[in-house]
Amino acid sequence: MNSFGHYLRLTTFGESHGAAMGGVLDGFPSGERPDFALMKEMLARRRPGRSPLVTSRRESDEPEFLSGISPEGLTLGTPIAFIVRNRDHRSADYDAMRDLYRPNHADLTTEARYGLRDHRGGGRASARETVSWVIGGALAAGWLRTRGITAEARLTRIGGVEILEDSIIDSIIAEARRNCDSVGGVVSCVIKGVRLGEAGSPVFDKLHASLGRAMLSINGVHGFEYGAGFAMADARGSQVADTYRSLSSDETRDARIPVTNFSGGIQGGISNGNDICFRVAFKPTPTIGLPLDCLGRDGEAHRVELRGRHDPCIAIRGAVVVEAMAALAIADAILESGIHSREV
Amino acid sequence: MNSFGHYLRLTTFGESHGAAMGGVLDGFPSGERPDFALMKEMLARRRPGRSPLVTSRRESDEPEFLSGISPEGLTLGTPIAFIVRNRDHRSADYDAMRDLYRPNHADLTTEARYGLRDHRGGGRASARETVSWVIGGALAAGWLRTRGITAEARLTRIGGVEILEDSIIDSIIAEARRNCDSVGGVVSCVIKGVRLGEAGSPVFDKLHASLGRAMLSINGVHGFEYGAGFAMADARGSQVADTYRSLSSDETRDARIPVTNFSGGIQGGISNGNDICFRVAFKPTPTIGLPLDCLGRDGEAHRVELRGRHDPCIAIRGAVVVEAMAALAIADAILESGIHSREV
Amino acid sequence: MNSFGHYLRLTTFGESHGAAMGGVLDGFPSGERPDFALMKEMLARRRPGRSPLVTSRRESDEPEFLSGISPEGLTLGTPIAFIVRNRDHRSADYDAMRDLYRPNHADLTTEARYGLRDHRGGGRASARETVSWVIGGALAAGWLRTRGITAEARLTRIGGVEILEDSIIDSIIAEARRNCDSVGGVVSCVIKGVRLGEAGSPVFDKLHASLGRAMLSINGVHGFEYGAGFAMADARGSQVADTYRSLSSDETRDARIPVTNFSGGIQGGISNGNDICFRVAFKPTPTIGLPLDCLGRDGEAHRVELRGRHDPCIAIRGAVVVEAMAALAIADAILESGIHSREV
Amino acid sequence: MNSFGHYLRLTTFGESHGAAMGGVLDGFPSGERPDFALMKEMLARRRPGRSPLVTSRRESDEPEFLSGISPEGLTLGTPIAFIVRNRDHRSADYDAMRDLYRPNHADLTTEARYGLRDHRGGGRASARETVSWVIGGALAAGWLRTRGITAEARLTRIGGVEILEDSIIDSIIAEARRNCDSVGGVVSCVIKGVRLGEAGSPVFDKLHASLGRAMLSINGVHGFEYGAGFAMADARGSQVADTYRSLSSDETRDARIPVTNFSGGIQGGISNGNDICFRVAFKPTPTIGLPLDCLGRDGEAHRVELRGRHDPCIAIRGAVVVEAMAALAIADAILESGIHSREV
Repeated sequence: MNSFGHYLRLTTFGESHGAAMGGVLDGFPSGERPDFALMKEMLARRRPGRSPLVTSRRESDEPEFLSGISPEGLTLGTPIAFIVRNRDHRSADYDAMRDLYRPNHADLTTEARYGLRDHRGGGRASARETVSWVIGGALAAGWLRTRGITAEARLTRIGGVEILEDSIIDSIIAEARRNCDSVGGVVSCVIKGVRLGEAGSPVFDKLHASLGRAMLSINGVHGFEYGAGFAMADARGSQVADTYRSLSSDETRDARIPVTNFSGGIQGGISNGNDICFRVAFKPTPTIGLPLDCLGRDGEAHRVELRGRHDPCIAIRGAVVVEAMAALAIADAILESGIHSREV
Repeated sequence: MNSFGHYLRLTTFGESHGAAMGGVLDGFPSGERPDFALMKEMLARRRPGRSPLVTSRRESDEPEFLSGISPEGLTLGTPIAFIVRNRDHRSADYDAMRDLYRPNHADLTTEARYGLRDHRGGGRASARETVSWVIGGALAAGWLRTRGITAEARLTRIGGVEILEDSIIDSIIAEARRNCDSVGGVVSCVIKGVRLGEAGSPVFDKLHASLGRAMLSINGVHGFEYGAGFAMADARGSQVADTYRSLSSDETRDARIPVTNFSGGIQGGISNGNDICFRVAFKPTPTIGLPLDCLGRDGEAHRVELRGRHDPCIAIRGAVVVEAMAALAIADAILESGIHSREV
Repeated sequence: MNSFGHYLRLTTFGESHGAAMGGVLDGFPSGERPDFALMKEMLARRRPGRSPLVTSRRESDEPEFLSGISPEGLTLGTPIAFIVRNRDHRSADYDAMRDLYRPNHADLTTEARYGLRDHRGGGRASARETVSWVIGGALAAGWLRTRGITAEARLTRIGGVEILEDSIIDSIIAEARRNCDSVGGVVSCVIKGVRLGEAGSPVFDKLHASLGRAMLSINGVHGFEYGAGFAMADARGSQVADTYRSLSSDETRDARIPVTNFSGGIQGGISNGNDICFRVAFKPTPTIGLPLDCLGRDGEAHRVELRGRHDPCIAIRGAVVVEAMAALAIADAILESGIHSREV
Repeated sequence: MNSFGHYLRLTTFGESHGAAMGGVLDGFPSGERPDFALMKEMLARRRPGRSPLVTSRRESDEPEFLSGISPEGLTLGTPIAFIVRNRDHRSADYDAMRDLYRPNHADLTTEARYGLRDHRGGGRASARETVSWVIGGALAAGWLRTRGITAEARLTRIGGVEILEDSIIDSIIAEARRNCDSVGGVVSCVIKGVRLGEAGSPVFDKLHASLGRAMLSINGVHGFEYGAGFAMADARGSQVADTYRSLSSDETRDARIPVTNFSGGIQGGISNGNDICFRVAFKPTPTIGLPLDCLGRDGEAHRVELRGRHDPCIAIRGAVVVEAMAALAIADAILESGIHSREV
């Protein structure tokens, strides 16, 4: 099913080269004023063709809202539906792909799963899909802000190099382009303001499990870790025990919140009042300028120079998608605990 | 909610020091003969008190099946309910914890979330919960075997050291015990036999997203990666493109399955016919023999020697839980694609 | 939530005087050719302004499909999204209603539930909503036809009179119009071709429970009965036992299907191979030409002549909505049993 | 799936002649004290063997609670699991039924659906299942009482006769027994105390649609109507418009609640503050003392005297099941609107 979330549920639709992408956000609280400025800013960060770093496909990405918002601009508590038209197709670019399956793409698996596929641009598997996630996520993020919660994700590692300053990104991208190659990256996300006990459940809806599922849904993501993450596996218990300060030392801070954060803001699946921190690993863009072996419908390998427009590093535009999905996951968890808790 | 899966759904219940743990597995195919030998073997691998490596809490872990299986031993297509009694409580061990919140435990977050908690042994947050997962997972794993699918998980890294031979585990555990400390570990899992297009969906139910959610639900897990995982983020696209061989080279193998497996057996969220491979990072057991700072209900830090029985490395017994949850996630995905696909 | 169905799920959106109505049908089998002729016919039966019997609001009701269907006209197995623009608003007709709550309408309850409402035409509570149900239902009905299953619903009782011939409808409507009044009606539905054991589950997803929920979701429906229905409550067991013929008497018919049908084609919640029969009670249109007491925001009763365009008998156009929702419920049940059954 | 409810979810299990019946109630608010006296009273009303009016099968029906309740008797916010052992089997009574399918029972449809069935006593289709519904429903009903909400259901019609006084029931049952026959009945339910806007959603989760689904899930139910019900279909709009009084006439009552109640306490799917009223039609017990034609596995009709113990009128014990399911449906709806509403 094409839905994310239980209490705040985003259902999306659209093939990348069909008429439109879109979504329905159900369960959004009523009487809220959506933060369209934030949405615009988030869409701009996701937009292709924005800088030399990313693909040149030009889409206006202007969402049309069809329902759920009153003429006065307030949410009605009804489903918020939106669409984004697909305008700049160049489907012909993909004609050669009708009988070929690109490596590390969903072409063959989709066809095996459904018996047919839309060969023009990847169908549901295209990263174009994430435009709907950013729209839905921006609505969630705007609502979270009214509760003092912010999510910020940014690229912190690219092609094996920690990003100490932004020029590193430019250098690595330039080098990748020069070599007709692509690079992977790591996006780190910090969510501030989620209160102790406000989000997450103890068993299958642990907050980090919901965040993990959300992140692993993003195209090209191959790993997720929170708090000390994989480094936890190499540590001793005595090294990574979060500690509390005594009450007297700092009167302004909630004494129940640990001063260290190996746990990444989540204890037993429930927010512990600290910043929620996680990292997401993106693979390099699979479509590169160098010729690649594709599998043909004839069962033979075919060396092909794939065209189309693609970012050398999907993680760059992936950061805002991470933020959007994080906002949806956190909002869903907060709405859930809202009904079952006594005193949050 | 305490449920996992949409088409094959495990709902669990039980506090670690309550009357019983248990679960209801709904959606299991009818007319199947559960593989109780496999279940017994999996439960033995999870059982505490089995070896010097693990906690000495003794539980028989003998499940009682209450429904869903005919007198002839065949599944009826109705919910399979089972319980495991909690026998060896020693709840008194936990009396001192009534007014203390252990670091890196769910004590405080649970109380903040629900307004109260069962202070005896962790309630739903206890690893005791996973006994129900192993029972449900063993049912799923048995069914998968009848379809030629097997899942195998094992500890591949402990306390920062790759496990080249089993004696490494013993040495590291012995050292941790000596220091009253604990160590983390990495569990690697390989699932063989899932056919091209047989499992996974392209958007929010990507196979690796479901596996990730399943793994991140396991107590103490801090990270998940599949295929080349986080290493993907450091790679060039030209390095990690999976390749196909030409048909002529090997007539016995499906030419549509790549010969390399950077993708971990999943393409666009759908199984591609290769082995499905992923890794799971477990943190060190948070309860160690050394005194730890606990937060008191009085808002002060209290240095406490926590007793109770705990494994120095939860990842050891975690391996079979990884297998169990993997089986549930894969079975759920196969049942889903069964209804929506044409020719799998 | 605004969704119907678990395996074939229709999610709808739209306020009657907003930009558009629409829906997303997820879980539809791939490789199918939608029966657009059937859809057109069903939409025509639902359309306002079609005959003197129904409201004069004119809507083209032409759906635009945004996704889920390939250029060749085959379903992709991906969500099928569609919208219907709202063109003929006359919202001004409703301006007087801003501070009034109509009797037997959702005005006041919606406002109490959500804190605000779209006063123009009923928002989500408008019967306009059902245009999306007919579109989704027509897709389901078309798919059912390819399996030999048809659903047919028609008005069988109006204003207390059994409809022995169609002219009765005209006479009663004419009389109601003359008196500026409205009348209720009963819609009877027969579904043919569902095989023994093909649809329905034994506990909470009994086929008649799903059908009942579907029917009771339709605007203005106050009752649902299947098989002998409420008459069952007045009967003796010996009178309503369905009987089987012996095999020899008729070689062409499945001997396992009873020759009587007090059970309405459903036994223990599962289809028994007989025609599935049920009846649905529609209330009279609540908005009538006579002045009615509305509750004002001031807490006083106000006698108002409600305008707007309304059918004197909503059951007339309701018949096709019954068919559409029946098709969705049956298709969902068939897809469910498809995964869990052995030999249907 | 064997679950009811989205926010408060009851999952049940158990075959009538297996080891135990039981359920898991997930989503129940924490910190509540279950009303076990109410549960005991409700179970007593459901219990077989209680009076000459009902079947003589003797079950203690004593539930064992396995989880979800603290030693101090407060709900923990975790799943509340319970079981009821099946003690008095007499499975041998059913041996003759191994190769026969009773008319108006689920025997044949279950076997067609799942490929096999538990022939001893009906499996999941047995009314024994409802013991779990009454336990779960009593928990919900107890919680509703703390909010001032009560549900009361009683038999109001039996064998075609309105029950003006209780002796009518005795007479009709006596007559049915004398004739080795059974009779149907109607149960009427009134729910008091649900506030305006507190429960129900406008589209597919209309309060009466949820109640209808709940009632139609009960064994032997063939019809559901609310408010004026099927009589609505025979009425004129001018006759059934609910009216409001002017504020001045009665200062103690909420002026926003109509003084008439044709709508049955629900407007547009949402509670309007009036009593919620509905009626449920039960068929006569299908197993009667007279010989009946059963279908044999050989495809022939067999005249059989069915034994076993059965009530002549299932509606008598059905009343408390109606109450229980109503409580679950109302509680679920209240929890849902709790998260999405602003000011309920």
